[in-house]
Amino acid sequence: MKVVITGGCGFLGFRLCQRLQDAKTLRGAPVTSILLLDAVPPAAPVPAGEVAVRHQQIDISDAADVARAIPGDVDVVFHLAAVVSGHAEADYDAGMAVNLAGTVALLDALRRLGTAPVLVFASSVAVYGGELVHPISDGHILTPQSSYGAQKAAGELLVCDASRRGFVDGRAVRLPTVTVRPGAPNKAASSFASSIIREPLAGQEAVCPVGRDTRLWVSSPRAAVANLVRAAEVPAEDWVGSRAVALPGLSVTVGEMVEALRGVAGDEAVGRIRWQPDERIKGIVGGWPYDFTAANATAMGFVRDASFADAVRDFRDGL
Amino acid sequence: MKVVITGGCGFLGFRLCQRLQDAKTLRGAPVTSILLLDAVPPAAPVPAGEVAVRHQQIDISDAADVARAIPGDVDVVFHLAAVVSGHAEADYDAGMAVNLAGTVALLDALRRLGTAPVLVFASSVAVYGGELVHPISDGHILTPQSSYGAQKAAGELLVCDASRRGFVDGRAVRLPTVTVRPGAPNKAASSFASSIIREPLAGQEAVCPVGRDTRLWVSSPRAAVANLVRAAEVPAEDWVGSRAVALPGLSVTVGEMVEALRGVAGDEAVGRIRWQPDERIKGIVGGWPYDFTAANATAMGFVRDASFADAVRDFRDGL
Repeated sequence: MKVVITGGCGFLGFRLCQRLQDAKTLRGAPVTSILLLDAVPPAAPVPAGEVAVRHQQIDISDAADVARAIPGDVDVVFHLAAVVSGHAEADYDAGMAVNLAGTVALLDALRRLGTAPVLVFASSVAVYGGELVHPISDGHILTPQSSYGAQKAAGELLVCDASRRGFVDGRAVRLPTVTVRPGAPNKAASSFASSIIREPLAGQEAVCPVGRDTRLWVSSPRAAVANLVRAAEVPAEDWVGSRAVALPGLSVTVGEMVEALRGVAGDEAVGRIRWQPDERIKGIVGGWPYDFTAANATAMGFVRDASFADAVRDFRDGL
Repeated sequence: MKVVITGGCGFLGFRLCQRLQDAKTLRGAPVTSILLLDAVPPAAPVPAGEVAVRHQQIDISDAADVARAIPGDVDVVFHLAAVVSGHAEADYDAGMAVNLAGTVALLDALRRLGTAPVLVFASSVAVYGGELVHPISDGHILTPQSSYGAQKAAGELLVCDASRRGFVDGRAVRLPTVTVRPGAPNKAASSFASSIIREPLAGQEAVCPVGRDTRLWVSSPRAAVANLVRAAEVPAEDWVGSRAVALPGLSVTVGEMVEALRGVAGDEAVGRIRWQPDERIKGIVGGWPYDFTAANATAMGFVRDASFADAVRDFRDGL
């Protein structure tokens, strides 16, 4: 299995690469190479192991650049490259270039291979918005209320169509908000969902821009990566009706997340959270979906975390 | 009102231009100019009247070409330019270029004006497919089963997002199959829906590739054009939840269409229909939606034909 990961030098890309190193197989065959494509060079050494890992800088929105970078014998592509929600809202052109044109460029490059490789497209629950009925069923209409969500939803349509036509064997999975992420806050409107756990655990102050009652649909990095791998491994015939699916997750309030932090790290950690409402963030996050049946995904073998406290412990323990 | 019509030299574009000539007003103000943009020159003199009509050839998929062609003071744009269903299925690149990149190019050009003009996007019921529950409600998920449908659905998402952001005042309307169209059969999979009426009325043989039980969601050209105008005129605040809506239509079987033809033109006309099943066309058309509640659209003042026989008579009478 020759694997390509776009956005491969990002947090999830590295985690996915590490997981493939550890598992050594994908879709029942040995992983023989991993190519990390990203707009930036890796900020740390690429995950080492038995599998050869290369990295290459590309502009995903440049069709010729993408076509040159994709190996002719690739078996599985994980398309994680994206401009995140807050960034796509602040810079419309950047979102359109990376999230939409980038996906079009990748589909075009893969189609021209003529081998119909597996394509796992990292979509997002941001494709949902507007009038939501919770828990959200698999047949719920997509009316995104952010440019990020609209671009991801458009990408899903193109991946599904390219799959129907046999250009790729595509699988679009709508990731919950992934938390706890390491590193620094990013431009995602959901950045606080990691900050309020990560910073207090490190003895630092965190700012929470939304209220305790705010409910989110979340996944640990471990479950998110497991589900990206699962997406590549679900048999083609098990995708019924659509090649896009909302992934399982946990429906938790910010208050519950904070209590999980208290359970793991105590009152002192919780005291490091500064509650500072930000109407812009509240407006974005308040429209997000926060509970799903995830019936199709569960039937297809996608997994969910046992509890948010586990996600906090995982992060504390560097897992 | 300065009006631009993309695909303006096509059948619906000309009909719309004529209607604006006749009405002389749009959104309560006089129509002062109409610019028809198209990949081809007009095949007949442009609809004449009090309003000045110009036409210009452009490549809608070329962002620079589109930006140059759009007048800076445009008030209302009707975006009808499209590669039709059968053509987009046969030529994936052409569909992606015109239906997707063309819509992106137009949105980009309109955004850069900074005036948020009204944009009426002609979408299609081809955005629906897969597991359908008839009559289809306004909240039904879009899982198109053709490249045309996928590209139109992606275009809708982008129009809705650009409207949310205030770049345009967008309105995406999902047109039923428009019949009876004049002229020759085209590459649309639905071409037969006009042929089986048009050719017999002209004393010519028509081929029907689908069975009598095939049910379609149709609109006369008159109702389709009335609804395009209505789309431009619905107050912005009346669009709730989404800037996209399925238009009213008639749910008729091919058998009922043929009986309407018999009522208008007799047995001899019906005898000119040759029933010659085409599995490719049957496969495409069989997956199309054939009945809608159109509740939102009806509440917003969109109209439907009284009967299919009226559409046949309209066509016979050159209306």
